[in-house]
Amino acid sequence: MTKLLESLFDRLDELYPEMVQLRRHFHENPELSFQEVETPATIASYLNELGIEYQENVGGQGVVGTIRGAFPGKTVALRADFDALPIQEENDIDYKSKNPGVMHACGHDAHTATLLVLAKALQERKAELHGNIVLIFQFAEELSPGGAKPMIEAGCLDGVDVVFGTHVWATLPVGKVGYCSGPAMAAADGFDVTVIGKGGHGAAPHETIDSLVVASTLVTNMQQIVSRNVDPLKSAVVSVGSFHAGEAFNVISDTATLRGTVRTFDSDVQDSIMEKLERYIAGTCEAAGATYEYYYHKGYPALINHEEETEHVVESARCVVGEENVVKLDPVMGGEDFAYYLQHRPGTFFFTGAGNAEKGIVYPHHHPKFNIDEQAMLIAGKVMAKATCDYLVQSSAQTPENTVSVSSKRRT
Amino acid sequence: MTKLLESLFDRLDELYPEMVQLRRHFHENPELSFQEVETPATIASYLNELGIEYQENVGGQGVVGTIRGAFPGKTVALRADFDALPIQEENDIDYKSKNPGVMHACGHDAHTATLLVLAKALQERKAELHGNIVLIFQFAEELSPGGAKPMIEAGCLDGVDVVFGTHVWATLPVGKVGYCSGPAMAAADGFDVTVIGKGGHGAAPHETIDSLVVASTLVTNMQQIVSRNVDPLKSAVVSVGSFHAGEAFNVISDTATLRGTVRTFDSDVQDSIMEKLERYIAGTCEAAGATYEYYYHKGYPALINHEEETEHVVESARCVVGEENVVKLDPVMGGEDFAYYLQHRPGTFFFTGAGNAEKGIVYPHHHPKFNIDEQAMLIAGKVMAKATCDYLVQSSAQTPENTVSVSSKRRT
Amino acid sequence: MTKLLESLFDRLDELYPEMVQLRRHFHENPELSFQEVETPATIASYLNELGIEYQENVGGQGVVGTIRGAFPGKTVALRADFDALPIQEENDIDYKSKNPGVMHACGHDAHTATLLVLAKALQERKAELHGNIVLIFQFAEELSPGGAKPMIEAGCLDGVDVVFGTHVWATLPVGKVGYCSGPAMAAADGFDVTVIGKGGHGAAPHETIDSLVVASTLVTNMQQIVSRNVDPLKSAVVSVGSFHAGEAFNVISDTATLRGTVRTFDSDVQDSIMEKLERYIAGTCEAAGATYEYYYHKGYPALINHEEETEHVVESARCVVGEENVVKLDPVMGGEDFAYYLQHRPGTFFFTGAGNAEKGIVYPHHHPKFNIDEQAMLIAGKVMAKATCDYLVQSSAQTPENTVSVSSKRRT
Amino acid sequence: MTKLLESLFDRLDELYPEMVQLRRHFHENPELSFQEVETPATIASYLNELGIEYQENVGGQGVVGTIRGAFPGKTVALRADFDALPIQEENDIDYKSKNPGVMHACGHDAHTATLLVLAKALQERKAELHGNIVLIFQFAEELSPGGAKPMIEAGCLDGVDVVFGTHVWATLPVGKVGYCSGPAMAAADGFDVTVIGKGGHGAAPHETIDSLVVASTLVTNMQQIVSRNVDPLKSAVVSVGSFHAGEAFNVISDTATLRGTVRTFDSDVQDSIMEKLERYIAGTCEAAGATYEYYYHKGYPALINHEEETEHVVESARCVVGEENVVKLDPVMGGEDFAYYLQHRPGTFFFTGAGNAEKGIVYPHHHPKFNIDEQAMLIAGKVMAKATCDYLVQSSAQTPENTVSVSSKRRT
Repeated sequence: MTKLLESLFDRLDELYPEMVQLRRHFHENPELSFQEVETPATIASYLNELGIEYQENVGGQGVVGTIRGAFPGKTVALRADFDALPIQEENDIDYKSKNPGVMHACGHDAHTATLLVLAKALQERKAELHGNIVLIFQFAEELSPGGAKPMIEAGCLDGVDVVFGTHVWATLPVGKVGYCSGPAMAAADGFDVTVIGKGGHGAAPHETIDSLVVASTLVTNMQQIVSRNVDPLKSAVVSVGSFHAGEAFNVISDTATLRGTVRTFDSDVQDSIMEKLERYIAGTCEAAGATYEYYYHKGYPALINHEEETEHVVESARCVVGEENVVKLDPVMGGEDFAYYLQHRPGTFFFTGAGNAEKGIVYPHHHPKFNIDEQAMLIAGKVMAKATCDYLVQSSAQTPENTVSVSSKRRT
Repeated sequence: MTKLLESLFDRLDELYPEMVQLRRHFHENPELSFQEVETPATIASYLNELGIEYQENVGGQGVVGTIRGAFPGKTVALRADFDALPIQEENDIDYKSKNPGVMHACGHDAHTATLLVLAKALQERKAELHGNIVLIFQFAEELSPGGAKPMIEAGCLDGVDVVFGTHVWATLPVGKVGYCSGPAMAAADGFDVTVIGKGGHGAAPHETIDSLVVASTLVTNMQQIVSRNVDPLKSAVVSVGSFHAGEAFNVISDTATLRGTVRTFDSDVQDSIMEKLERYIAGTCEAAGATYEYYYHKGYPALINHEEETEHVVESARCVVGEENVVKLDPVMGGEDFAYYLQHRPGTFFFTGAGNAEKGIVYPHHHPKFNIDEQAMLIAGKVMAKATCDYLVQSSAQTPENTVSVSSKRRT
Repeated sequence: MTKLLESLFDRLDELYPEMVQLRRHFHENPELSFQEVETPATIASYLNELGIEYQENVGGQGVVGTIRGAFPGKTVALRADFDALPIQEENDIDYKSKNPGVMHACGHDAHTATLLVLAKALQERKAELHGNIVLIFQFAEELSPGGAKPMIEAGCLDGVDVVFGTHVWATLPVGKVGYCSGPAMAAADGFDVTVIGKGGHGAAPHETIDSLVVASTLVTNMQQIVSRNVDPLKSAVVSVGSFHAGEAFNVISDTATLRGTVRTFDSDVQDSIMEKLERYIAGTCEAAGATYEYYYHKGYPALINHEEETEHVVESARCVVGEENVVKLDPVMGGEDFAYYLQHRPGTFFFTGAGNAEKGIVYPHHHPKFNIDEQAMLIAGKVMAKATCDYLVQSSAQTPENTVSVSSKRRT
Repeated sequence: MTKLLESLFDRLDELYPEMVQLRRHFHENPELSFQEVETPATIASYLNELGIEYQENVGGQGVVGTIRGAFPGKTVALRADFDALPIQEENDIDYKSKNPGVMHACGHDAHTATLLVLAKALQERKAELHGNIVLIFQFAEELSPGGAKPMIEAGCLDGVDVVFGTHVWATLPVGKVGYCSGPAMAAADGFDVTVIGKGGHGAAPHETIDSLVVASTLVTNMQQIVSRNVDPLKSAVVSVGSFHAGEAFNVISDTATLRGTVRTFDSDVQDSIMEKLERYIAGTCEAAGATYEYYYHKGYPALINHEEETEHVVESARCVVGEENVVKLDPVMGGEDFAYYLQHRPGTFFFTGAGNAEKGIVYPHHHPKFNIDEQAMLIAGKVMAKATCDYLVQSSAQTPENTVSVSSKRRT
């Protein structure tokens, strides 16, 4: 490991109490997606004190800082999201949420605290750095359409060569780091269907168009989308979460409404399902003489990690936690708007283990008792530090004019 | 027509204003099923004044009177129901319901007024009558399990040879009388099914038992009950009126609930459907690994008019309104607890036209603007009068010991 | 009973052996529908010998004779069909079919023998008859489109006032006569559906359009035609008799073919089903991206007996077999092209009991061991004789100019 | 490349005409699975002439030879299958099959010819070889339960350290080599279901249990196995290939038969589908009162290539055809009993391109016009030669006592 990294790691160890304090501050003061005010102000103020140039209100409530290294080089972006969820916290802790019904139940408080402290350590070393580091503090990850898209549109990736992000992961023990090359998190879409029939007396079905029967037929027919229309080597889910029709037991309902979700990793599969869903709806309604309304809501796209950048982070993680603690994870069907960054730039999104059964930290994400082992922040910070520095050094090494000056700094 | 009948018809014409006044009194003071207090008291008081022997609280709130003719003979029962509905009246009339949210929206007020006045006219002529006339004033027809059953159990049909009843019928113009031999009104049952699966995330269906899909499959499978399991020459309906499962679009629901109705005219068909419903439910749930709860609520049985007695009333009706105004009706899928009387005694239930488009009397039963052309009461009274007297005379004529005395009274 | 009828009945008793002999002749020499040659020639020859005027090749292989009464009056048509079935007889009898694979397994031999002998007896009495009797010997009843339609088009009902026909009925014991007013036999239609998908390897369903799954979905959806689209008070059946798709277990079939039948009594219901079948087929195929071919073959229409004429024949039958032996039958779902005559003229089609368990005559129609108790012919002949003569006498009685002359002949 | 390999490759080039001649000999004389007689005899005779020790009738018709190198070392097994298919050849070639209805339509002739000639070249160089080479000539690959299993049970893998095999691949152009690490070919199972209902007249469904409707419902319900019961991250197919029920359009069929296939890569998924299929069948039949017969036939297991050995062969292939011609293939849903060897030993099964559109070699496997570009044999032979020699050298290099002697032979 280079001296720069050694010094960085030491400094992060030193700053760990500040990380914890910052994270707990955010935890006590959670703000809902798109309604973040205090959190971005705190972030901006912190960057300001460090002398890092930054921009507020990027694409909405986003904050973007830039650390400029002394040497020319590439630009790495690091992203932390900072919004919370509409959940009433049930943890019995000192730093419990003061905001009723709002809670950092997904660890974004930790993401932001980690990146702020890492920024501090990096900014202190900018005289030794090649290239630049863009710090993306993102609002509204939890609520589609999310903050990533408008921040990208506002230019947060301009000049960026690679982007890294992490999520503290409750189902992975602290001390471990997970990765998944290629499709890692699913595209999570929604749909609403209203079948419009013609109501009437339950005793006279022939005078009606029974929307409830049509919608039931539709649910059974929809099963053929995955079973018959999707390549068995690809993943897809079509689930109907709610079905509501009629109130009285003896009256045939005018309408029946279905709401559901579609999960895919491949945009061809996604497009095909979106189209075939409508075909099944249209045909099934037509068969019975009913009509329909259909809305398909595209959520975040599938998050596809880039192979080379994933390997790069895996290398960094092995250095931080040891080879045996870096684990390949299966893709997950949940969504994450980090996906948008990866549509524009190479990069990867990795998972930092934060569970700790011995300490009772066992609750899943979005649970009122969700919590993390805060050591996860230190690990996340070090993996990002190493991935960033290695990337900048290696890429500057490959730049002909820098060859000599950096040759001695090549990694072990 | 015999002199007795001529005199009876004249008297009913004379008493028509009293019929109207009584009906309007009941209309202004409606009482809900099983909660009738004033209505049976009024009936009892009226019978008392006429010197008709009667019994109160028969099977609950029922009142049963008996007119005893001077000559020996058979016994005819006439039934009128007197409960009202939980509907807020919207008619703009003098005698509008004084009871908020309660209304005679099905014409039971007219049934009772008619029978009371007919009782008066018959009681005045008891010296000329053969046999007896039982007056059944029934509570709680509108609400299953109804008043007919407990009144029968309390003995209201003891000694009765035949039973007649009528319903004022809004969809038939006043001046007409409808009949339907054999099955005339359906058995109207209800059922509730809860499919119990195992909820979970919409993205992980394999970790769940998707109750919504099972219930949809069940609804489609249930169509086979009527299409494959019921004799095509017999009538049956199985309708699901409500289907509720899940709230979130991306969560698979633990349970799905269905509520529906079964309509039949034939108790074998009814029993078979009740059994096959459960078989379809059990099999469909088993196929998917789900379990279920199933309740089947038997409502009133099918009302089956007896052929001979129906013909007898048809003859009477032809005499009252003319042959061209007596019309054969198709069975209706609605229910009526007069069915129970017909399970115990021969008899018929006929329909007395009460609609009048010219007067704006066009609203269906159970509508907040339901009303009747009150002339229907006079027609109903005369048809029952003639059917009753003819029956008593004819049957006494057939009784050997009476042969001589009544030979001169045989019908025209 | 009039003297004419007494004499007629006596003569029929006398001619019974000839009836039997004729029937057995036809039985030994059965001919398939539309291929009848010897049978109509035998009929024509028999009529010729009787001096009855007749026409051959009416509408095809039909023979129509006319007996002209001495007195003016109405015209009664009597119909007997004479084709056989493609069945190999398995009876062990003297007069077993000599024509391999062809058999009178439905009793048409008896119908024709009865009508020929009845014609003989009536022709002998033409001096006493009012009006005329048309003898319709019809070919091809067993095979749609049948012989009735072309014979009517060729004029066999011209001048006819009423038409009677009967069927010997194996499921009714000999000695009984059955009737059914109104809808008595169903319209029996057929349909063929080919679902056209796109075949492929069983392991790659997404590259195919799985016709087998589409056709299965269609069969389940079709159940909704009867359960949801037909008035529960009306009868209808939609059955799929055959489903064929694919040969190999691991290859997805290009096409799937369904063949089925539709039974109805009401042409509105028939038309509605024909239309809704196609709607269900079209919608179900569209849902899955498949196409289809659909043929609907209308068979004979529903046979609707006229009420008045049915009562007339019931009266006749009561006279022949006694009131207790005349039974009301439920409608049957089988078809019969006598239906066409009843679309053009008043009339009725009744059922002459021909079963006899004691003699082992227990096999259903179209069975290789089908047979009849030949006494049925005598009963059928007498019922038709009485129905015919009564009709002619009554109608001539109502004709003013005939009033005097026939007054003495009114029935008892 | 080592001298040994250079010499081996040269020798294989030289022997190419013999390879072709041998392959054409087998092509002309194809033998069905489990009925192989001449083919194993020819193989044995060839090995015998080469002085290679061999054993006949291994596990049935298998032949196993062993080449023993002069130096100690590991043991590599190479496998070639030699059975043909029940297909009538339609190629117009000199060496067309002489055995009517039997054809080498899958390239096993080429596999065997390649391995025999490779054996010759290796045997000639045994003085330079480390370790041993086991030559597995396998019968009956085309027909489950296959020859691999009994040959393994008979000991053909005893002492073997690694196993390699290849398939000439018609859909890959000659000159290319394909590989697929991990699951590469599916477990291919079959199932038969007979739904047993109760037949009857199409007009009287209520007297039947309509097996055709039950089986249709079952096909639609089966779609839920993949859509609801299989982890969306895993691959599975359930396809029904044939559905047969009923002959007449108006008769309800007693029974309906379905035949289908299940494809999986994961034995847990396979077991779960096998179990859930029966549950869906049982429940669906129970719902309708039907019974069933169900047979599930396990075919070959999924073929799972080992990662390290696959990379090893990829290296070899790159050396033979160049990096740009070694392609990663998607898994295929077809089956192959090489899967069994890989359940017992590390190894890999690769795909040798054999198509050539310019020469009209475009027909798929199992097609009557299937053929290969014979150059594929030379490529297959060289890849196996290099993979074998490299493996033996590398592994002996790792053995301490051999370190010195082989250090100079390490690969380029």
